[in-house]
Amino acid sequence: MMKKYAMGIDIGGTNTAFGLVDEDGNVIAEGKISTEKYRYYDDYKPYIEALAAAIKELIASQPECDLIGIGVGAPNANIHTGVIETPANLWKFENPNDPRPNTLRIFKFVDDLGKFFNGTKVMITNDANAAAIGEMVFGNARGMKDFAMITLGTGLGSGIVCNGEMVYGHDGFAGEYGHIAAESRETGRQCGCGRKGCLEAYVSATGIKRTAFELMATMTCDSELRSIPYDKFEAKMLSEAADKNDPIALEAFERTGKYLGLALADLTATTSPEAIILFGGLANAGDYIMRPTQKYMEENQLMVFKNKVKLLMSGIQDKNVAILGGAALIWKQHLEAVIENY
Amino acid sequence: MMKKYAMGIDIGGTNTAFGLVDEDGNVIAEGKISTEKYRYYDDYKPYIEALAAAIKELIASQPECDLIGIGVGAPNANIHTGVIETPANLWKFENPNDPRPNTLRIFKFVDDLGKFFNGTKVMITNDANAAAIGEMVFGNARGMKDFAMITLGTGLGSGIVCNGEMVYGHDGFAGEYGHIAAESRETGRQCGCGRKGCLEAYVSATGIKRTAFELMATMTCDSELRSIPYDKFEAKMLSEAADKNDPIALEAFERTGKYLGLALADLTATTSPEAIILFGGLANAGDYIMRPTQKYMEENQLMVFKNKVKLLMSGIQDKNVAILGGAALIWKQHLEAVIENY
Repeated sequence: MMKKYAMGIDIGGTNTAFGLVDEDGNVIAEGKISTEKYRYYDDYKPYIEALAAAIKELIASQPECDLIGIGVGAPNANIHTGVIETPANLWKFENPNDPRPNTLRIFKFVDDLGKFFNGTKVMITNDANAAAIGEMVFGNARGMKDFAMITLGTGLGSGIVCNGEMVYGHDGFAGEYGHIAAESRETGRQCGCGRKGCLEAYVSATGIKRTAFELMATMTCDSELRSIPYDKFEAKMLSEAADKNDPIALEAFERTGKYLGLALADLTATTSPEAIILFGGLANAGDYIMRPTQKYMEENQLMVFKNKVKLLMSGIQDKNVAILGGAALIWKQHLEAVIENY
Repeated sequence: MMKKYAMGIDIGGTNTAFGLVDEDGNVIAEGKISTEKYRYYDDYKPYIEALAAAIKELIASQPECDLIGIGVGAPNANIHTGVIETPANLWKFENPNDPRPNTLRIFKFVDDLGKFFNGTKVMITNDANAAAIGEMVFGNARGMKDFAMITLGTGLGSGIVCNGEMVYGHDGFAGEYGHIAAESRETGRQCGCGRKGCLEAYVSATGIKRTAFELMATMTCDSELRSIPYDKFEAKMLSEAADKNDPIALEAFERTGKYLGLALADLTATTSPEAIILFGGLANAGDYIMRPTQKYMEENQLMVFKNKVKLLMSGIQDKNVAILGGAALIWKQHLEAVIENY
């Protein structure tokens, strides 16, 4: 008997992973191709061809597969236009002296991939939004109408859901909560976006590493972290050091949680979520990051919100979230259409 | 011939104003009763009776009136529960030694008023949300799916609309953008909410007055403002002084616009609105507040949002906004139901 599946695709800088996902969030078959191999601008077209071929092969391997659509999570993707706009780490110009500006590269992903799948629904959104939809369809936000997802990876991404709908905003780029001001725009840390003081410069794998190095400068205590050079330092080393009560690691988590907690209190005042869900590498530090985040969030909530907002870990943390997120984009729309036509 | 009207009610600390509003936003009849006369806790019941009687009288004066509902804008009102929760300036305990805590006063407004209007739809929301809905139905946000309304009165209120729906949030209290951190929670200005550094302590009629007094302390220039004591000072005096190029007044607008512009850039990163609409007393200062707000908002936008978000003045600024806002709450739902049943 034919069974319905959604194809979820996650476009990362190294690999593009994809899988067939059923209604309950089970990934029944998956595959991947290298993104890195196709990293330059002129590789984009062959990349799409390779991806389409690999996906078709996976579908063909499942004889009972009724494909309801293809959902994609990617950096800088816009759900309204189906376009990936100037991704920092994908399809850049090979020659740094190329006269075409690296600041404006537009990839019509939905159209370009769609050509290979006649009539199949293709949707794309940015990775954090895909994670939020994954959480809503398959994870800890099931049944919630108002929540926010914070992804703590190399940067800080966010997906905000209000009234049961993803907030994409007028331009399709809402949820850039990593780029609100956590410190002064004049004296704060330099951010990758070109400005200063952004939350993600403090709260992310990179942000906590920067904090640790600042603390090595300001504190005088012994720490095993002092033997690691900046360019070899990984955020997970802070969890390992914290397990041994390393004072710099513990203080780095405390400060990072404070920045995040303050920012989540402000997010609460803005959108009043039922829950805020943390996801991603830094969230794996568990209590080290959750405890101070929770503490500072509560301390700084407006009275009317105190002790009302749940701070949760992702419910799909251990699964292949990126694939689930893309597939959830399709499943959410599919299930809503079923209900509407009922 | 019978014509459809919504009753809009605005509950202010001094008066409660109400009016019958047609589909095009015309107020065809209006009235008011004193709120102040009923300012204590035990006056709440007689207040509701007096309000119901006055409204009934207004309706009776319009023989062709088909009332589709009653919509109310009030401080601390919750659309989910129909309740006004602990309003700062309404129905407090008369005796300051009353053992009942002033911090928890619950008024079931929708139920209590509804009893007098058998079967008529009654809805309530906070004033800033009502203003946003008024703007969406009758003002400059007509046709917009994603926008934010900022009301600059004694405090700073906000109403955020995403995907064509008001963001009330899980608890019904979303849109407290006046209480995000504009300065440090540790060293910022004291706010009426009990915390420090809130945006409204800097950007509001009260906030700009505080800034003017800070500037009188830090600047040495002459200024006519120096002759006015703090408790006689009104925000509109700053517009008058700015008209005469008063350096303190001009700098006060500059700094206030900077705080607001920075906050609006962060709001853009969060919800990506098509427009941000300013409304209320301080917004009447026109260019004095709009110019620096626009400038700092643009300077601090994330690249992807630069020159995309419209900063507008309210389109219902000169009308009886509060009444229109309440009525719009009813009209919006009514029109959506008509479309759905079509």
